[in-house]
Amino acid sequence: MPNSLPHVVGLGQCSWDILGHIEQFPAVDAKTELLDVVEQGGGPVATALVALARLGCHATMLGTIGNDPYGESITQGLEAESVDCKLLQKDPRGKSQCAFIAVEADTGRRNIFWTRGEKRPFVLGAEEKATISHADFLHLDGLDEAASYQAATCARERGVPTMLDGGTCRDGTMRLLPLIDHLVVSEKFARQFCDGDNPEAALEQLSSFGASSVTVTCGADGSWTKGGNGTTFFQPAFSVKAIDTTGCGDVFHGGYLFGLLHNWSLKKTVRFSAACAALKTRAMGGRTAIPVIGEVEDFLKRN
Amino acid sequence: MPNSLPHVVGLGQCSWDILGHIEQFPAVDAKTELLDVVEQGGGPVATALVALARLGCHATMLGTIGNDPYGESITQGLEAESVDCKLLQKDPRGKSQCAFIAVEADTGRRNIFWTRGEKRPFVLGAEEKATISHADFLHLDGLDEAASYQAATCARERGVPTMLDGGTCRDGTMRLLPLIDHLVVSEKFARQFCDGDNPEAALEQLSSFGASSVTVTCGADGSWTKGGNGTTFFQPAFSVKAIDTTGCGDVFHGGYLFGLLHNWSLKKTVRFSAACAALKTRAMGGRTAIPVIGEVEDFLKRN
Repeated sequence: MPNSLPHVVGLGQCSWDILGHIEQFPAVDAKTELLDVVEQGGGPVATALVALARLGCHATMLGTIGNDPYGESITQGLEAESVDCKLLQKDPRGKSQCAFIAVEADTGRRNIFWTRGEKRPFVLGAEEKATISHADFLHLDGLDEAASYQAATCARERGVPTMLDGGTCRDGTMRLLPLIDHLVVSEKFARQFCDGDNPEAALEQLSSFGASSVTVTCGADGSWTKGGNGTTFFQPAFSVKAIDTTGCGDVFHGGYLFGLLHNWSLKKTVRFSAACAALKTRAMGGRTAIPVIGEVEDFLKRN
Repeated sequence: MPNSLPHVVGLGQCSWDILGHIEQFPAVDAKTELLDVVEQGGGPVATALVALARLGCHATMLGTIGNDPYGESITQGLEAESVDCKLLQKDPRGKSQCAFIAVEADTGRRNIFWTRGEKRPFVLGAEEKATISHADFLHLDGLDEAASYQAATCARERGVPTMLDGGTCRDGTMRLLPLIDHLVVSEKFARQFCDGDNPEAALEQLSSFGASSVTVTCGADGSWTKGGNGTTFFQPAFSVKAIDTTGCGDVFHGGYLFGLLHNWSLKKTVRFSAACAALKTRAMGGRTAIPVIGEVEDFLKRN
């Protein structure tokens, strides 16, 4: 039976996150007991796919895990959210990506320590290329530079639109940028393209690579977007009492893809993304409070 | 066949430690990629027992683990060091103690985030009491207050000497102190017993609980000891280029127990302990570089 839901293929990071609340960030050489601990899957692409799955899309994860308990947990976490993991590649001698995230209890501010693990790059074979070819969207985070480039090239050849979640502009990212249709990047990424705090200048620079929409996300300070028609707009972040902001950016991307899949205007799409990200902050962990579609609609009516 | 090696029973924390080098401690709300990651067992009592096992003693671990991969790893790590884990208790619904430790690459300075996990207290039954009764020493860290008190009471009744590794003086610690023969505590613990920086005043206060030796360890600043005959002495820390100081205190306790088991003088015992701790700093992780007896002897000849 063909799946009639919109289908997003994501290629990128899937991580195992260990999060703990702390009373306050410790002085160096001090010992801090965590107030509580939450463990769950994370990673920019993986969590964006979970958001899409909760919103009612079909999502397929392409990525690499190690042959370790974290890898098992990563897979189980995605499968529990109905993300298709058939093409997840396990490196038999590899170690999975993981992160430790200390969250300050009163403020929700975080320190993130992460490792990409030790594993071979993702291998893009015939089955993976066929899956991308039949998808409605390809979502990338660019960390696995060779595989990201191959996947984006495949998508471009088959007319499948692409989004890049840019956190840090690395060596291979520049080669990837001309293959990206929708570029949604962090403030840190944008700063690598302009001097100082000038979101509009960054949008201008980033648009020159050819994407039809470019958005720079600035956390609680909102986001700046430039569309294909040249108009630029600002979307404030919704004001919420954040328990934990882990994964907000990832969920924003999930919402953005959802809007694009439904051919919404960019303004509607970005406002929807901001609502998804705001709702996510309701609980500890990057995925716990990712909303379903009804919750986002209710939130948007009230805000 | 009876085991003729000196036998130390330890009751206390056994943890799974995840350690990562960082270039420098991150600003709040920043993301830091770890330069490398080491995972291994830790915990004050568990690592002291590993030190004793490497030095050639028989060591038995009494403690609790959760029913999770960390618990499995904790057990495997101890068994690989020949620490007897037959009386380790697994809480079927419990979560193991674990820690994340960020180590600054150039300085070896650390931030330790830890959780005691969620598990039932240790149950001291007939077999556990018999094991303590036949031991040459009981080593405690006092975190599990009820079990520590019961174990120390049992040891006192049977004439088995006791050592407490005091990191933080908690509510239940005060009740435990009169049952301790050798009190080897951190600077932080000692500060709870005197105003400001006065190790000799702290030794005086701590001795009043009845221990025949009291030592306050001050990391790279050395240690202060007061013996049963009232004499007080200072042992400087050996000057080493530390890769990682995780577990130094635990290994110091292992060395101290080794000296006491061999009826060495307190001065010889503490110097030996300081050498064990210094050698431990040669590698990342609380246990990697714990020395065997020949290494300590060579080091002491050279220093």
